[in-house]
Amino acid sequence: MKTILPFLALGLLLGVSTATAADTLPSWSDGAAKQSIVDFVAKVTKEGSSDFVPVAERIATFDNDGTLWCEQPMYFQLIFALDRMKALAPQHPEWKDKEPFASLLKGDLKAALAGGERAMAEIIMATHAGMTNEEFEQIVKDWIATAKHPKFKKPYTECVYQPMLELLAYLRANGFKTFIVSGGGIEFMRPWTEKVYGIPPEQVVGSSIKTKYEMRDGKPVLIRLPEVNFIDDKSGKPVGINEHIGRRPIAAFGNSDGDLQMLQWTTAGQGPRFALYVHHTDAEREWAYDRNSSIGRLDKGLSEAQAKGWTVVDMKRDWKVIYPPVKQ
Amino acid sequence: MKTILPFLALGLLLGVSTATAADTLPSWSDGAAKQSIVDFVAKVTKEGSSDFVPVAERIATFDNDGTLWCEQPMYFQLIFALDRMKALAPQHPEWKDKEPFASLLKGDLKAALAGGERAMAEIIMATHAGMTNEEFEQIVKDWIATAKHPKFKKPYTECVYQPMLELLAYLRANGFKTFIVSGGGIEFMRPWTEKVYGIPPEQVVGSSIKTKYEMRDGKPVLIRLPEVNFIDDKSGKPVGINEHIGRRPIAAFGNSDGDLQMLQWTTAGQGPRFALYVHHTDAEREWAYDRNSSIGRLDKGLSEAQAKGWTVVDMKRDWKVIYPPVKQ
Repeated sequence: MKTILPFLALGLLLGVSTATAADTLPSWSDGAAKQSIVDFVAKVTKEGSSDFVPVAERIATFDNDGTLWCEQPMYFQLIFALDRMKALAPQHPEWKDKEPFASLLKGDLKAALAGGERAMAEIIMATHAGMTNEEFEQIVKDWIATAKHPKFKKPYTECVYQPMLELLAYLRANGFKTFIVSGGGIEFMRPWTEKVYGIPPEQVVGSSIKTKYEMRDGKPVLIRLPEVNFIDDKSGKPVGINEHIGRRPIAAFGNSDGDLQMLQWTTAGQGPRFALYVHHTDAEREWAYDRNSSIGRLDKGLSEAQAKGWTVVDMKRDWKVIYPPVKQ
Repeated sequence: MKTILPFLALGLLLGVSTATAADTLPSWSDGAAKQSIVDFVAKVTKEGSSDFVPVAERIATFDNDGTLWCEQPMYFQLIFALDRMKALAPQHPEWKDKEPFASLLKGDLKAALAGGERAMAEIIMATHAGMTNEEFEQIVKDWIATAKHPKFKKPYTECVYQPMLELLAYLRANGFKTFIVSGGGIEFMRPWTEKVYGIPPEQVVGSSIKTKYEMRDGKPVLIRLPEVNFIDDKSGKPVGINEHIGRRPIAAFGNSDGDLQMLQWTTAGQGPRFALYVHHTDAEREWAYDRNSSIGRLDKGLSEAQAKGWTVVDMKRDWKVIYPPVKQ
């Protein structure tokens, strides 16, 4: 034992930062992706260096679907909407003869979505509007607590990526403020993001419908209206970031072409910048898809990432585990 | 000397919290207003009590115009717009024959504003849109650094209320997250709120115009469009709070009927709540106005505050000083 003590001491002296990074991102394989993250964080947190970024400006934005949690076999919010439709169907006998509801209630998702964006909007409005914001919050909380992923048979909040949870914590430990910037509904995410990701409601940016303030029985409420307010996707992401955060992120994380403008906007700022794409390459543990997928297509973004040298995570190679340990 | 030592020691033992409050809000006169603030903060921060509020939920929202800084002889953002118009006039020869610009350039504010909201909107769009968000930020920074208040002859950022600066700091020292929720332009405030109030851009909610993401010479920019996005006033305030913060404040601070819905929304939540109106009663050191003022009218709000027992600050009586010490 005695003989290795000096080496241990030497290791403690020399290896502090490496050891910390390894401990902090344990689900990441050693390789270029992990190294690029650790290098960037070391660079912007080194006081006195020309790359140093003050804590207040360490803004990191994360897409949600396909970046922090799964988006297969379809967006989880769409599954939520379908579950809501089934629950609401008894109050809507007219849905039996009206598309896209009729097809959906027969279980024919393909026929229902043949109506494109308009069909999608009808499903969202029928299930997401018409109640107060607090009623909707409770509906989401109830669903997220009980619904299970069709393939993995576990709650959706456990279909999150363990390496990304570690990354969020690692960035926050280094003074970053972490935000979600998602095409998903802002009020669909807020009820659970703090518990699952450590991201509070005020740091969630997403798509939204309009709300209206009114008095009901002498009590003020916000009513959710069947009218789109903002679509936080593609070129909407920099707009949403500017509106909600008011400063440009120095690091951004996505997985699809819907995140491309966010990554462009982030990396076009002055000083050190970081952009990362999660590339779904793991058909065995998760899914493998990119340029030709209808969900989470990564085509232009993949080409631009390669051309610009952004970090591309090869999920199969770079992540030792995909999901958090199963809760007992 | 020796004889008072035991009393000093006793004071140290018994008087810690009182001493702290007194030291923290030194510009507030002892009285009901100050006491109500201190009592509320003591209540929600007392661990183990039924009124205890976890840090994450200690959200406090502040109106800006007339609550954190002056709004007389007219809203400062309107003065900014008029200054911008004069600067831009040489590029707009057509303004000489077009209202509201013609009257404004002649210095006839009253005639210009006779066109009501439409005239106001034209002035705002002509001066606030058509550039990138970064260009606008620089324009605001330059103006705020050089323009001076017509009566006080000092920068607008020194026409802020010292007691409110102390209050912001006191709340933050007690775990509160402080937000601005103002009818003013979000991008007009963000360039200076962090320095002046300690409130970062991501904690500023305000009115906004639409922006559009596009590429200019291969570089992404956000262009400010001459189109209203959101009016953060009256019933818009709870909507803006919900959109940006995603949880209900436990304390809200305003000075006019434009803040009434924010105070209603805040106090309608469960658990301990706090609402405060700044009542402009000091014609000598600042201004005195309320029920009949065209700027910052406080009429319905004053009645509701009295009926509901909200705190109403009598500026003349409750504030020992109005403005921060003059910077050398």
